[in-house]
Amino acid sequence: MKTSTTLSRPQLPTADDLQITDITITPIAFSDPPLLNAVGVHEPLVHRVVIEVHTANGLLGLGECAGGSSRLANLAVGAAAIKGVSVFDTSRMEILIHEALAAELSVFERAAVFGAFEVAALDIQGHATGRSVSELLGGTVRDDVPFSAYLFYKWAEHPALDGRPAITDEWGAAMDPEGIVRQARKMIAEYGFKSIKLKGGVFPPAQEIEAIQALRTEFPDLPLRLDPNTAWTVETSRWVAEQTDGLLEYLEDPTPGLEGMGQVAERAAMPLATNMCVVAFDHIKRSVELNAVQVILGDHHYWGGLRHTRELGTLCQTFGIGLSMHSNSHLGISLAAMVHVAAATPALTYACDTHYPWNGHNDVIMPGVLNFVDGSVRVPGGPGLGVELDRAKLAELHQQYLDADMSARDDTGYMQRFVPEFTADLPRW
Amino acid sequence: MKTSTTLSRPQLPTADDLQITDITITPIAFSDPPLLNAVGVHEPLVHRVVIEVHTANGLLGLGECAGGSSRLANLAVGAAAIKGVSVFDTSRMEILIHEALAAELSVFERAAVFGAFEVAALDIQGHATGRSVSELLGGTVRDDVPFSAYLFYKWAEHPALDGRPAITDEWGAAMDPEGIVRQARKMIAEYGFKSIKLKGGVFPPAQEIEAIQALRTEFPDLPLRLDPNTAWTVETSRWVAEQTDGLLEYLEDPTPGLEGMGQVAERAAMPLATNMCVVAFDHIKRSVELNAVQVILGDHHYWGGLRHTRELGTLCQTFGIGLSMHSNSHLGISLAAMVHVAAATPALTYACDTHYPWNGHNDVIMPGVLNFVDGSVRVPGGPGLGVELDRAKLAELHQQYLDADMSARDDTGYMQRFVPEFTADLPRW
Repeated sequence: MKTSTTLSRPQLPTADDLQITDITITPIAFSDPPLLNAVGVHEPLVHRVVIEVHTANGLLGLGECAGGSSRLANLAVGAAAIKGVSVFDTSRMEILIHEALAAELSVFERAAVFGAFEVAALDIQGHATGRSVSELLGGTVRDDVPFSAYLFYKWAEHPALDGRPAITDEWGAAMDPEGIVRQARKMIAEYGFKSIKLKGGVFPPAQEIEAIQALRTEFPDLPLRLDPNTAWTVETSRWVAEQTDGLLEYLEDPTPGLEGMGQVAERAAMPLATNMCVVAFDHIKRSVELNAVQVILGDHHYWGGLRHTRELGTLCQTFGIGLSMHSNSHLGISLAAMVHVAAATPALTYACDTHYPWNGHNDVIMPGVLNFVDGSVRVPGGPGLGVELDRAKLAELHQQYLDADMSARDDTGYMQRFVPEFTADLPRW
Repeated sequence: MKTSTTLSRPQLPTADDLQITDITITPIAFSDPPLLNAVGVHEPLVHRVVIEVHTANGLLGLGECAGGSSRLANLAVGAAAIKGVSVFDTSRMEILIHEALAAELSVFERAAVFGAFEVAALDIQGHATGRSVSELLGGTVRDDVPFSAYLFYKWAEHPALDGRPAITDEWGAAMDPEGIVRQARKMIAEYGFKSIKLKGGVFPPAQEIEAIQALRTEFPDLPLRLDPNTAWTVETSRWVAEQTDGLLEYLEDPTPGLEGMGQVAERAAMPLATNMCVVAFDHIKRSVELNAVQVILGDHHYWGGLRHTRELGTLCQTFGIGLSMHSNSHLGISLAAMVHVAAATPALTYACDTHYPWNGHNDVIMPGVLNFVDGSVRVPGGPGLGVELDRAKLAELHQQYLDADMSARDDTGYMQRFVPEFTADLPRW
């Protein structure tokens, strides 16, 4: 043992080499189609953040998370807190970030800030050791990570507004079952997805059930999911569950709150899934007591990074809860992290969500690593996340952010520009 | 990023380099005093196993686990199953081992076999990357890991038997409260422990309560624990809990089974702890439903290695369950692994158990790394576990194993050699 470790040790970095010396936080904006959901419509630009963590020995690790001005402020606090810490001390990073952030922040926001830096730290760990992030998490149990087609009701275009012309996209309108099936055909032709999720909560439930039935007719073998983002009452949710019995692999967040979900679960034949009422470890105990959800959609952006997401998997397995994966609008750094943790999480039982097809072919990473083949993404070989920053594209999307003068995502306010009487009061039906 | 990773990459091992090529499994035996428990008395020798995992590039990783002929057979099956796997693919190792082992084996035994190899794989990961095992688990949240003084009722000597003379030890007899206090004084003087556990279930409960009271008088500030290994009925357990109210930081396994523990927990003022009714992830759901235990004693030898032990911590935290650490008779490879995982598990809420003071100053590792100072062990700096095999001592203890012709631990059978009417039927009181 002594001989071999002596052989390899001199080239390996020390803990001092791996201290975090500098962190760059770059807000960016990229285009998004007018995707509809229960609280409004996606704005023309998504606000996102790219994180670059640098170490004393010149290594670079990447992270990506949701944007917004309060998030940016919290990320700055987190970044200051972890200067000088070794990238291998992620638990210490977590403690320091939690201590530095304002006490009144939600566990959710704390976990999100830490998670962004943890991914970058694991990326550097990979570069320092020549290993992929999935190897650092325990190794892969699947070489390809399956994703689902994420369908949205959508307008044909962002309407002209404030002097700006209308913005069209490659996808066209999807305002009825035919439009949804057309969208599914295009997305599956291009990406090869083997399961389908429909974002609902937009039209009265009967109409969305028709869309699910139309998808079932068109794709008899693909698992289907429906997610109205708590747009329905318990009674409506139970009725939808009855109407879609045998059609859905799971029904996601039909109604608000753990108690409501529990009341729906009592009657629903299919599992209920959530990324809304169980979004932190703190929420799980009550959910188990109520048997409120049978599938949790993990998301390393919410759950405090990759290691905690894998832990969530073990926890789900322990309680007989299925594990799927949530997504917000995201680019390739997040996708790489999602793929690594999904590949390294034995408990993952469903294809993951991704908004990636909706990003207008924008990305901040060099192309070629993350490709969808038959709906799956091959785990990048690494080291680290296995992706490289495209600095020209980063600069372009950062300028787009600066030009747009964005603060926070506001699907509801944007919808109200066109439909003044629109409200985000849920449940709606 | 490109420049710096190119700099460090050439010296780093490839996945092929890190393939497991050979595994040596060495049964050993070391001396043990006549420690009493609810099912008998420790035999003069402990059967234990040292595991050496070798990789293609000549690295060596160490593991240690409990012995016995069926365990040795299962380890051989596990070893054959993971040949050719990279030491970074621990999840794949787990799957392969579970598939290779006989289907009728308990989850407990499967986890134990995998855990022994996972520790060795993490040791090698550390040597390959220049990092300590705790760093690979997320980094330390404590530099020193606290242990408790593990007191036993004991005979003054192993009686002469089958022509072999009596075997004395440095500890002397402890058959009453005075003997227990004397043992505690010696152990605390030598190791500096800041908390105390008494192995009970040996004498009628009133007598063991007296020992606890005597310890409280002698050590007014040290947390105390009592563990009768399910020697009591629910009724007796409730009575003991009442009598020791205010004296114990937790009461461990007073009665058998989750239902019984739940009935005791309903009335007991102190938390109930276990390493008997919750020893695998499969047992947790029912325990939570019954609120049967408030503290789980983790043990990487039981719970499937170091990463799963850390996951157990997150799980405990999620459900408001405390985390302590169990120990069987063990040597330094196990102690190093226990220290690394304890240091890297934020959820650990109690000082860990250890039998280390009882090993007759035997060990299979080179001395100097693992020292008890004020009851705590400093986390070895690594790389890997940070301990090195003492091959002369390994050979000596292996010869001792061969000479002894051991099969499985048998505290009960050994006790019956001296007390023929002794039975291990529990609960006894």
